[in-house]
Amino acid sequence: MSPQLLPWTACVLTLFPEMFPGVLGHSLVGRAMSEGRWSLDTIQIRDFAHDKHKTVDDTPCGGGAGLVMRPDVVADGLEEAVKRFPLAKKVFLTPRGKPLTQSKVRELAQGPGVILLCGRYEGIDQRVLDEHDDMEEISIGDYVLNGGESAATVLMEACVRLLPGVIGKEASHEDESFEAGLLEYPHYTRPRVWRGREVPETLLSGHHEKILTWRKNQARRITQERRPDLWAAYCEQTKGSA
Amino acid sequence: MSPQLLPWTACVLTLFPEMFPGVLGHSLVGRAMSEGRWSLDTIQIRDFAHDKHKTVDDTPCGGGAGLVMRPDVVADGLEEAVKRFPLAKKVFLTPRGKPLTQSKVRELAQGPGVILLCGRYEGIDQRVLDEHDDMEEISIGDYVLNGGESAATVLMEACVRLLPGVIGKEASHEDESFEAGLLEYPHYTRPRVWRGREVPETLLSGHHEKILTWRKNQARRITQERRPDLWAAYCEQTKGSA
Repeated sequence: MSPQLLPWTACVLTLFPEMFPGVLGHSLVGRAMSEGRWSLDTIQIRDFAHDKHKTVDDTPCGGGAGLVMRPDVVADGLEEAVKRFPLAKKVFLTPRGKPLTQSKVRELAQGPGVILLCGRYEGIDQRVLDEHDDMEEISIGDYVLNGGESAATVLMEACVRLLPGVIGKEASHEDESFEAGLLEYPHYTRPRVWRGREVPETLLSGHHEKILTWRKNQARRITQERRPDLWAAYCEQTKGSA
Repeated sequence: MSPQLLPWTACVLTLFPEMFPGVLGHSLVGRAMSEGRWSLDTIQIRDFAHDKHKTVDDTPCGGGAGLVMRPDVVADGLEEAVKRFPLAKKVFLTPRGKPLTQSKVRELAQGPGVILLCGRYEGIDQRVLDEHDDMEEISIGDYVLNGGESAATVLMEACVRLLPGVIGKEASHEDESFEAGLLEYPHYTRPRVWRGREVPETLLSGHHEKILTWRKNQARRITQERRPDLWAAYCEQTKGSA
């Protein structure tokens, strides 16, 4: 059987498998799972503990608060995941990682799937990362969580919605934030007047060309105002392609 | 009764209240909830629909794929949340928002709580944001999700772990990524040698001063290598305080 025939798969290594599928069991992503468009596997890291107390962590070398996950236990769990999903991309979710972007999401969604290692406590022993140096360290943002589980959920949701057939029309992705390097333009719907606030006239004109221009200008304005960093990258990129 | 006596509260406005508490019902954050250290309320936006079909969305003005959430329905839901939690900070989770940072997390955790508006479909009508212009638009990262629910989960987890008594020792926060403007240093625990890889000697020296220096240097090295943006901000800040 060719691995290409399998649906996109996420295998989550965690001390809390009961946290999954969580939000991913609902709405479009949950439906896509029950339709077999993607699958979610979990591995309980604690199952790879060596002692009868099922110890997964120990005090940090050099002292300090908190506990660190042992390299032997974590690596054994990770290697079981690799055995199950040899083609999946290995990812460790950590605030020390490379910030997740929409283009990384697209890359991960196009592959056969991901193995997501979720740390808890103060983190995992560095030697696991040295041993598996093809594992990517990814951060979902510049803040600290209690573990990788909600970060893994975010990463899976971002990927699964790009899989074929999960969201009705592929067109829904085209105008989204980041797809053209810009934030998205503002949206309006009925009623035409609400609390004295009107839908911008251009959007009601029926003039397709003018509407496109209005939206593009709004997207540029909002990006420039809110995200000078994205705006600079967009200008650089547009210059390059002109 | 003084509002200061109430625990920190998150009120989530969503079309999927069944997604909560999700991961937040487990582990330390879940325990903190059952101990009354924080509370989670949800409001079903659909309850504020005006017609018998309970319609919450409509086609976008100006055309395009997807649906937009109606301003009247969303605003009515939001105003019910404000009635319940008049002192809570209003937040709309959107990729167009200001990127969430650890300092924003600290700010939100120090307040009485948050009202978290979760969009679905293509987004919500811009006029709700214009009407409630004291609502902050926050993004958890530069990628697109199906709705605000998993982003809200991440924001709540980040806040709740900072509340008093949620994580055992306050000291656990001090060395974390971003707290000093740097990524965290690498962690090591037992065994001392694993697959031929040894714990760095300094960490086993028992020399407190040397260990601190080693960790600080590692944190600086990792930040410089991985996040030139954070490194530049750190250097700027350190220069200012010197």
